[in-house]
Amino acid sequence: MPHITLNSTEPGIRGLLLYRPETARPLSDLAEVLLRGPNTLSRGERELIAAYVSGLNDCRYCSGSHSACAAAQLPGGMAVVEQVRADAASAPVSAKLRALLRIAAAVQQSGLAVTADDVAAARAEGATDLEIHDTVLIAAMFCMFNRYVDGLATVAPDDPERYAAGAQRLITQGYLPPPAPPQP
Amino acid sequence: MPHITLNSTEPGIRGLLLYRPETARPLSDLAEVLLRGPNTLSRGERELIAAYVSGLNDCRYCSGSHSACAAAQLPGGMAVVEQVRADAASAPVSAKLRALLRIAAAVQQSGLAVTADDVAAARAEGATDLEIHDTVLIAAMFCMFNRYVDGLATVAPDDPERYAAGAQRLITQGYLPPPAPPQP
Repeated sequence: MPHITLNSTEPGIRGLLLYRPETARPLSDLAEVLLRGPNTLSRGERELIAAYVSGLNDCRYCSGSHSACAAAQLPGGMAVVEQVRADAASAPVSAKLRALLRIAAAVQQSGLAVTADDVAAARAEGATDLEIHDTVLIAAMFCMFNRYVDGLATVAPDDPERYAAGAQRLITQGYLPPPAPPQP
Repeated sequence: MPHITLNSTEPGIRGLLLYRPETARPLSDLAEVLLRGPNTLSRGERELIAAYVSGLNDCRYCSGSHSACAAAQLPGGMAVVEQVRADAASAPVSAKLRALLRIAAAVQQSGLAVTADDVAAARAEGATDLEIHDTVLIAAMFCMFNRYVDGLATVAPDDPERYAAGAQRLITQGYLPPPAPPQP
């Protein structure tokens, strides 16, 4: 049960976005530009970074949601997502993405944990400065979202079908703020 | 030296906001609404939460910047900010703010570290659901900003006067995105 009384029964961050529309807008805009805006990293790759960091933070709602989004947009589907979450260093993704995931894992610990060697390794695999920037910010953004969602003890559905359906909605509609709940 | 080549010599998050205007806008909007928007928590109290979390994350730029903002807007000035950062449990702030700082410290560890008891304690001191929500989100937001700023190894000035001057700018102008750098 959430720590505060929300104005809907929506799970995870959806309930929080409905509760506080003033913050919902910039939070949604940030997710939209980082995860779906023009980028040389594919949407599936960016969702994979989100799912990976959310798993490291043990955030059940966000890892379920973004694993489903990544699986639906990556060639390897859920099998690759699960391999990355189990052991990113040996997962069948590009060497560049593996190096970026390593940076994301460092960010999850602390910004200070990202080393010049981590960045040089990503660059050696072809990562651009902007890709390195966006990887750091996506990882950092999920360190926020995961804490927001779990710090207020929002509900996380158990059923994987709920996450798959949510992913389809995000893929077709984007990270728009959810509509206001009906007035009583 | 920053891990990536920025397009300015601005320190901390300012250099990152100038580098990536697409993300600068929602990041700035989020800070503006949470730290300066209408709220029953004063601007000084919200900046104190930001400074406290940034200190726990060892982020020199953000803790310097938001300590200066808090000091300039709190009755007790920098002395209170330093007491909170040294030992929030014994600092001379209201019992409600002390309870909210305890929630913020839990969020800094993990969203899952916030307990029902932490929330009940804040409520017993008069904190509203919205204040608890905003405390969690401010703390989570700085877990993002701190990682963003340090994960890309941005520069943090040593001179406290720089932070005090920056605080005056933020207090008068707000968290607007910085202007675009001059074109070459």
